[in-house]
Amino acid sequence: MAAIVVQKYGGSSVADVEKLRRVARRVVDTAQTGKRVCVVVSAMGDTTDELLALARKVSPAPQRRELDMLLSAGERISMSLLSMAIHELGAEAISFTGSQSGIITNDRHSGARVLEVRPYRIQDELERGKIVIVAGFQGVSYKKEITTLGRGGSDTTAVALAAALGAEFCEICSDVDGVYSADPRVVDAPRLLAAVSYDEMQELAALGAKVLNPQCVEFARSAGIAIFARATAGGGAGTEIGAAHSGRRVVGVTGTGDLVRVRFAGRGGAARARTLAHALAEDGVVTLCGGAAEDGGAWVFETDDLPDWARVKARIVAIGGADVVIEEGLGAASVVGQGIGGDPAALEKALTVAHELGVETLGVYTSPLRITLLAPPARIKELVRALHAALCG
Amino acid sequence: MAAIVVQKYGGSSVADVEKLRRVARRVVDTAQTGKRVCVVVSAMGDTTDELLALARKVSPAPQRRELDMLLSAGERISMSLLSMAIHELGAEAISFTGSQSGIITNDRHSGARVLEVRPYRIQDELERGKIVIVAGFQGVSYKKEITTLGRGGSDTTAVALAAALGAEFCEICSDVDGVYSADPRVVDAPRLLAAVSYDEMQELAALGAKVLNPQCVEFARSAGIAIFARATAGGGAGTEIGAAHSGRRVVGVTGTGDLVRVRFAGRGGAARARTLAHALAEDGVVTLCGGAAEDGGAWVFETDDLPDWARVKARIVAIGGADVVIEEGLGAASVVGQGIGGDPAALEKALTVAHELGVETLGVYTSPLRITLLAPPARIKELVRALHAALCG
Repeated sequence: MAAIVVQKYGGSSVADVEKLRRVARRVVDTAQTGKRVCVVVSAMGDTTDELLALARKVSPAPQRRELDMLLSAGERISMSLLSMAIHELGAEAISFTGSQSGIITNDRHSGARVLEVRPYRIQDELERGKIVIVAGFQGVSYKKEITTLGRGGSDTTAVALAAALGAEFCEICSDVDGVYSADPRVVDAPRLLAAVSYDEMQELAALGAKVLNPQCVEFARSAGIAIFARATAGGGAGTEIGAAHSGRRVVGVTGTGDLVRVRFAGRGGAARARTLAHALAEDGVVTLCGGAAEDGGAWVFETDDLPDWARVKARIVAIGGADVVIEEGLGAASVVGQGIGGDPAALEKALTVAHELGVETLGVYTSPLRITLLAPPARIKELVRALHAALCG
Repeated sequence: MAAIVVQKYGGSSVADVEKLRRVARRVVDTAQTGKRVCVVVSAMGDTTDELLALARKVSPAPQRRELDMLLSAGERISMSLLSMAIHELGAEAISFTGSQSGIITNDRHSGARVLEVRPYRIQDELERGKIVIVAGFQGVSYKKEITTLGRGGSDTTAVALAAALGAEFCEICSDVDGVYSADPRVVDAPRLLAAVSYDEMQELAALGAKVLNPQCVEFARSAGIAIFARATAGGGAGTEIGAAHSGRRVVGVTGTGDLVRVRFAGRGGAARARTLAHALAEDGVVTLCGGAAEDGGAWVFETDDLPDWARVKARIVAIGGADVVIEEGLGAASVVGQGIGGDPAALEKALTVAHELGVETLGVYTSPLRITLLAPPARIKELVRALHAALCG
């Protein structure tokens, strides 16, 4: 039987009917090389953000279950239109929702984790020679409720399907032609990376590189699936994300804004800090960096993925009371590379760069693969540029 | 246990966030009278037409299966937003798709018929005291495919659920305050009917009165469910559609445009006519009037509900060849009333009205409950006005 390829197309690649037609052409071209093709598609353009804005007009902290029901509509629109566009090119296609595709998740609405994939209907249709289109970003919980996988969740759908189908590889197609050593909109002429390791990619993605969703990289690593990050238009080789390291000490520098830091210290100590950590996890907070000590802890995270941040925040205050400090609107610049976090010389260099720029460092967090400097969001871009020039030469 | 009421809100009643809030208020008010409330909701405003237009941009004759996938997204948006809006008012609500509601249909995409309703999840949630919101217009086939019920299908969802839940009654709420003896936009001061029978309503709905979908009336009749057609805003009693007749000889006059007549006569006679009739039924064509004879037949129908009319037309030509005549763009005016079609005096009066107006009659069809005159669409409004004045005094 012919090899299976999974392709994922992001929202900007299917933003209008013209772009949808171009994606249809690319999919059919792949099928004509003799591969069986399973396509995962995001919602068209800004549909998800528009639906989210509509929900916020109705309620400041909408119920997550209803929000999942709402947002999952976006991919149904793009997938059925893409199926029609492929049909127009004379190829046979069929679209499936997350539920029909057998994407089984836990029941944490708005940030569900894929537990299992039962792609029987997809396999049947691929064997019949059809191109299968799958709605990204969504699944069905074991309680039969519709769930969504969080921001960038279509990447996770694609890699999880690639693993379950035993695909040759998984292509993540967007309007960017691969993974760069820094955001090209921020840094002049960053390096396009031919290859990065799963580890490196996960750190880059978690800390600001929007090319790939971090959970999808985790999936790819455990299933041993190679991911190619490529541009939808043009025929570049893109970046391969796989077992092989980039071969560079510093693979990239990323920047991100809109972070929140929650710090807790005081009476009750470790036990109350654990209650807080548990509550954050329950609400689907993904911690980017932080630490814990005997008498408390600190957690840094993005609120982008928390549709009901107002409610989550109220819960934090209810647990931590006067002993909790919530700082909103922080930025971060991170240097990512194998072993970089354990290298005192690299840390000193990063701090010197910040000092020389006159950027106030609000916190420093390191892990084996990175150094993260918290700083005011307005200064992040210049900090990224300076760190890239100093450390990523 | 408290009585169950099913309420259906049309697209114009939920066209924006403000209107959604007003519907939420009306639903909560009903729940506070001690009823258990199941709400069926259409897509917001013109969403369905906009999605259909998008599909047509991609393909002139989109596959019906994919079209159903596409169009079913509209109600998911409105139902989840309505659930959030009800929650904001302090009441508990939960939304269900057609599939989750147990609306089981046959597999005729874009015009599926409800075969069975298994409302177990709805019943559970109603018993827990929640308000249940259901996506109208959609179901799931016994082959687990998403289907839609055709134009006005949300009415059918509401009545089918009312029957399955043993509801006290079913309210169909829109921006019109009931069923009139003619369209108020066409005829000056028509009569608001306090009551009409199922039979009368079915004829009115089939032939142009857009207040109710004809299939839903059929369901209500067989389950003995009373329907109230009411305005969403304001507190009028509306029209009761039930077993009791209106008590009038002529209940109303309706007009409609955009009809097609297919006529077949010629070699092969009855057998080929049957093949043609079978093909039309298979494609979901609902015949409004027509007739069959030894050597052929005629079928008059609307194409509004046929997303792939181009394909259906090609099939008719393939079967009928040179012996088939397809006339598009016809209009019709109909006089509806118990026994009217069998009354030669009424028929003569209707034909005289048309003659005196100088309107060319392209065909006359009668049934026990109506007289239908086919005429050029541009003349239908004046014909309706004149028939209403002459016969519905």
